[in-house]
Amino acid sequence: MVSDGTGITAETFAHSILAQFEMRFRQIRVPFVDSVDKAYETAQRINEMYRTENVRPIIFSTLVDARANEILRNCQGVILDMFQTFIEPLEQELNLKSMHAIGRVHQNADSEAYKNRIEAVNFSLAHDDGQSNKNLQSADVILVGVSRSGKTPTTLYLAMQYGVKAANYPLIPDDFEREKLPSTLDQYKDKIFGLSIDPQRLSEIRNERRPGSKYASLENCRYEVNEAEAMMRREGIKWLSSTHKSIEEIATTILQEIKLERDVY
Amino acid sequence: MVSDGTGITAETFAHSILAQFEMRFRQIRVPFVDSVDKAYETAQRINEMYRTENVRPIIFSTLVDARANEILRNCQGVILDMFQTFIEPLEQELNLKSMHAIGRVHQNADSEAYKNRIEAVNFSLAHDDGQSNKNLQSADVILVGVSRSGKTPTTLYLAMQYGVKAANYPLIPDDFEREKLPSTLDQYKDKIFGLSIDPQRLSEIRNERRPGSKYASLENCRYEVNEAEAMMRREGIKWLSSTHKSIEEIATTILQEIKLERDVY
Repeated sequence: MVSDGTGITAETFAHSILAQFEMRFRQIRVPFVDSVDKAYETAQRINEMYRTENVRPIIFSTLVDARANEILRNCQGVILDMFQTFIEPLEQELNLKSMHAIGRVHQNADSEAYKNRIEAVNFSLAHDDGQSNKNLQSADVILVGVSRSGKTPTTLYLAMQYGVKAANYPLIPDDFEREKLPSTLDQYKDKIFGLSIDPQRLSEIRNERRPGSKYASLENCRYEVNEAEAMMRREGIKWLSSTHKSIEEIATTILQEIKLERDVY
Repeated sequence: MVSDGTGITAETFAHSILAQFEMRFRQIRVPFVDSVDKAYETAQRINEMYRTENVRPIIFSTLVDARANEILRNCQGVILDMFQTFIEPLEQELNLKSMHAIGRVHQNADSEAYKNRIEAVNFSLAHDDGQSNKNLQSADVILVGVSRSGKTPTTLYLAMQYGVKAANYPLIPDDFEREKLPSTLDQYKDKIFGLSIDPQRLSEIRNERRPGSKYASLENCRYEVNEAEAMMRREGIKWLSSTHKSIEEIATTILQEIKLERDVY
């Protein structure tokens, strides 16, 4: 995976293609190939591998610079070149020349969008686990759910990836006894989204933290999950089960459900 | 950006290509297109846009299913199809048929690798800002630097993206007076990596949090940064300046520098 930047795009590219093959691949990321010299060095490294292992390395390239690209294309690997492949047809369609400029793939650290992401991460940390009610009105979404249902990683992912300010509140036995959501949340009903989880799985997760505790017992987990789901139904809160979902899938669903999808950039 | 999964790959793909054009694009993510019906619906939506706006939509597709793909290819957008384009040459090279299986792009939430990532996120949260010395021996990396130099978002990114267990410790005036690293860290010297930052930028960041404080003053920021850099030099700690770097760039550099790059998956 050869890139002139961090290699994150090349890596996403490679993983998505390779996942389609029932085969294990040794993966090497070569980031910051941002000069002709480094391109030569990389090409030599690839040729060397080909000689010693007698298997053609598969190269996922996102190099933008034409000269560096030319050098890499002449190595003995199989080149899958994302830019070359798609930029030319797009230039024709748009009737516009691309910039072939290095390092434009990711947000610049000085950009507004980047600053928003970092601000969102700080917001999510400050509003983790119901820690603070301050500035809750500026939250884009407030996740609720029982302890260990996946709220924290999801809020951090939403913040880091999308600049979404996400707070999260635990639903605890106190709330179930009162049969009410934490009162702070009353005025933010339209921002709330719920996570639930299979009690069996919850019990496993909690047992890793506090083995043998009442908190982790299957019985207690069943009680909490039942109560939380009943409350969310009663309050008309949209929710999903996090049991078999990755944070990427949970985050994507939340963005769709609460219409946070930002379609203009 | 049309995907049968979360659309994260399609989005990364689109952003990296579009960033090469000096033009603003309205971007719409259409995730979970995992049936023939949804493919029809998406194709119709694209055709409708073409009719109303009279501009051919550009479609970044990562659909895997052959029938869904066929439907999309017959719409009136410009189709840039990552799978179709790269999977066939790879099948030939590997002499192996791909699975054309939906939803294989991202880690399954039940996989070991995914669990490691979530465990790493929990580790990073528990070891944020020197909060805990417990299990520090299982950290992959320990970031040090003055308050607000970018340690927290970086540790979270390393955890979330790479499953790297990253702790972080602030360097504070007490440490500068003693002219020593926090003593807890003595035995983990080889895991330490430093972040520094331009004092001017640091002062701006701190002023957003505590306007007009001594903590945020340029004079104090200069003092802390000078002392921290002197300490890192004295202790032989590798470090970088986070001033103009994104968390993606910082994380990539750290992985390279401390040889955390995992090249076998």
